[in-house]
Amino acid sequence: MGVHMSNSIKKQDVQALVEHFNVIRPFNKVLGLSAESMDTENACVHFIMREELLGNSVYGTLHGGVISAILDITGGFVVFLDLFKKVKGKSREKLMEQLTKVATIDMRVDYLRPGIGQEFTASGYILRTGKKMAVVRMELHSDKDVLIAVGTASYIVG
Amino acid sequence: MGVHMSNSIKKQDVQALVEHFNVIRPFNKVLGLSAESMDTENACVHFIMREELLGNSVYGTLHGGVISAILDITGGFVVFLDLFKKVKGKSREKLMEQLTKVATIDMRVDYLRPGIGQEFTASGYILRTGKKMAVVRMELHSDKDVLIAVGTASYIVG
Amino acid sequence: MGVHMSNSIKKQDVQALVEHFNVIRPFNKVLGLSAESMDTENACVHFIMREELLGNSVYGTLHGGVISAILDITGGFVVFLDLFKKVKGKSREKLMEQLTKVATIDMRVDYLRPGIGQEFTASGYILRTGKKMAVVRMELHSDKDVLIAVGTASYIVG
Amino acid sequence: MGVHMSNSIKKQDVQALVEHFNVIRPFNKVLGLSAESMDTENACVHFIMREELLGNSVYGTLHGGVISAILDITGGFVVFLDLFKKVKGKSREKLMEQLTKVATIDMRVDYLRPGIGQEFTASGYILRTGKKMAVVRMELHSDKDVLIAVGTASYIVG
Repeated sequence: MGVHMSNSIKKQDVQALVEHFNVIRPFNKVLGLSAESMDTENACVHFIMREELLGNSVYGTLHGGVISAILDITGGFVVFLDLFKKVKGKSREKLMEQLTKVATIDMRVDYLRPGIGQEFTASGYILRTGKKMAVVRMELHSDKDVLIAVGTASYIVG
Repeated sequence: MGVHMSNSIKKQDVQALVEHFNVIRPFNKVLGLSAESMDTENACVHFIMREELLGNSVYGTLHGGVISAILDITGGFVVFLDLFKKVKGKSREKLMEQLTKVATIDMRVDYLRPGIGQEFTASGYILRTGKKMAVVRMELHSDKDVLIAVGTASYIVG
Repeated sequence: MGVHMSNSIKKQDVQALVEHFNVIRPFNKVLGLSAESMDTENACVHFIMREELLGNSVYGTLHGGVISAILDITGGFVVFLDLFKKVKGKSREKLMEQLTKVATIDMRVDYLRPGIGQEFTASGYILRTGKKMAVVRMELHSDKDVLIAVGTASYIVG
Repeated sequence: MGVHMSNSIKKQDVQALVEHFNVIRPFNKVLGLSAESMDTENACVHFIMREELLGNSVYGTLHGGVISAILDITGGFVVFLDLFKKVKGKSREKLMEQLTKVATIDMRVDYLRPGIGQEFTASGYILRTGKKMAVVRMELHSDKDVLIAVGTASYIVG
């Protein structure tokens, strides 16, 4: 160990911000998201199937609105983590200020397969970032590793 | 009174199907939708702001996920009403069977302005329909008639 | 008559810029566009069917790539004219500088019907503009007034 | 030789169809595409920068319309090759008949970086296929391996 990177972001700081974010975003709670759902190491969002999230209670599939909501949140989360890496050394207040500026411009969602599963994981990666905006691709997989939906979204970042 | 159009769709039939649809789609209830929310005359979906739907409790704005969910539901509702007009004379069972085949292929959402308001109305219109698919445009307005978001989606219809 | 609005944009200035734009964009010429194609009064782009623009010489339909190219150009043109209105009083150089910053972020195109016709008109309108970006909706109609395709695009404007 | 797989698609058959396709699609020629541009082994489309393809002759960048056209063609080409694999044993006439049914429903293009380069390669892969439609993702890279643009498109296939 020994080496202390003074300007690196502490994992607990990221976690604290994620937690705060979920608190100020009540709808995230409706979707069943919490700080534990947000995997800051792998830029993933996990969630568990619940009756409330069904779009079709006969087929037991996720609602399309849940899918698009999760993909949008995941894209924003990816942008969020990317900003963290760039703003090393900034205070938590500065970070939070910048993070509140992140907003989705537009998003495309492709609903590929029925959202069947006990648990789901949404992940994403940056296609491009700049000072003004970022473009992110997102994917939603079931616990059987079935690709359920993909998305592409543009975000304002500053 | 007097004139009975035997092959027209009765308003109560449409309403019954909408009600059934909301029952088998639990997430619609989470969004605060009910049969009364779905205006079958004007192809509109109304809903009321609630704390659970917030994406930012500081600014009091709708969650992006709520917006995309409502737009997708509205697009499907527009397709649903369009199918009704075409399948005149069919039994309620036949109608329901066809309606369960409706599925969103993909959707683009443009988040234009903050989702601020006490009540919201989402509406939509058909851009093209065929035997296989339909393309629909959707809009979300606040009670101050501010255009908050628009969307375009493709649906499988048969 | 009498009143001279010193800071209004002269029509010949707009036309000169459009002409310049088409010159520095060789592909516009390939599509058959010229300064005359760009209707600065109505924010429309007109073009005439030519064999080179066919996507299917058997059916005589426009190539999808021509359709998406025209919609993108039209959206940029709408942004261009909107900037003109806002930057009243600026020099032609300033205007041109700002205009070269306009770039498409992303675009969705819906191909609704076969591109059949002798002439076509693409038009568009602003959904939202700000200091950083603009969102525009575009439509392509044939000379028989058939709606052939629609698009939505986000543009960086500053 | 020895083993003859009677129901496999011969490479020359694919190539013949690609050639035919480019012939009946005059706009492909405008873009500089030929049978040699279409790599049936790797589902790639190659093309060379030419003055006509410029969107900005000052910066020397590809026109956005060229980018969207190439991405759409590439997505269709990926669907085309996928159909080939599935319809093994069918006659060339049957194949061609099915191929002419392929049509783009909608497409999203993200313009990530300026289209600078001497040569470009567009590639794509299937996200989902079925009897009615296919969803494809496409990418455009420069000869410096810079990711210039990505796209996602839905196609009717039957």
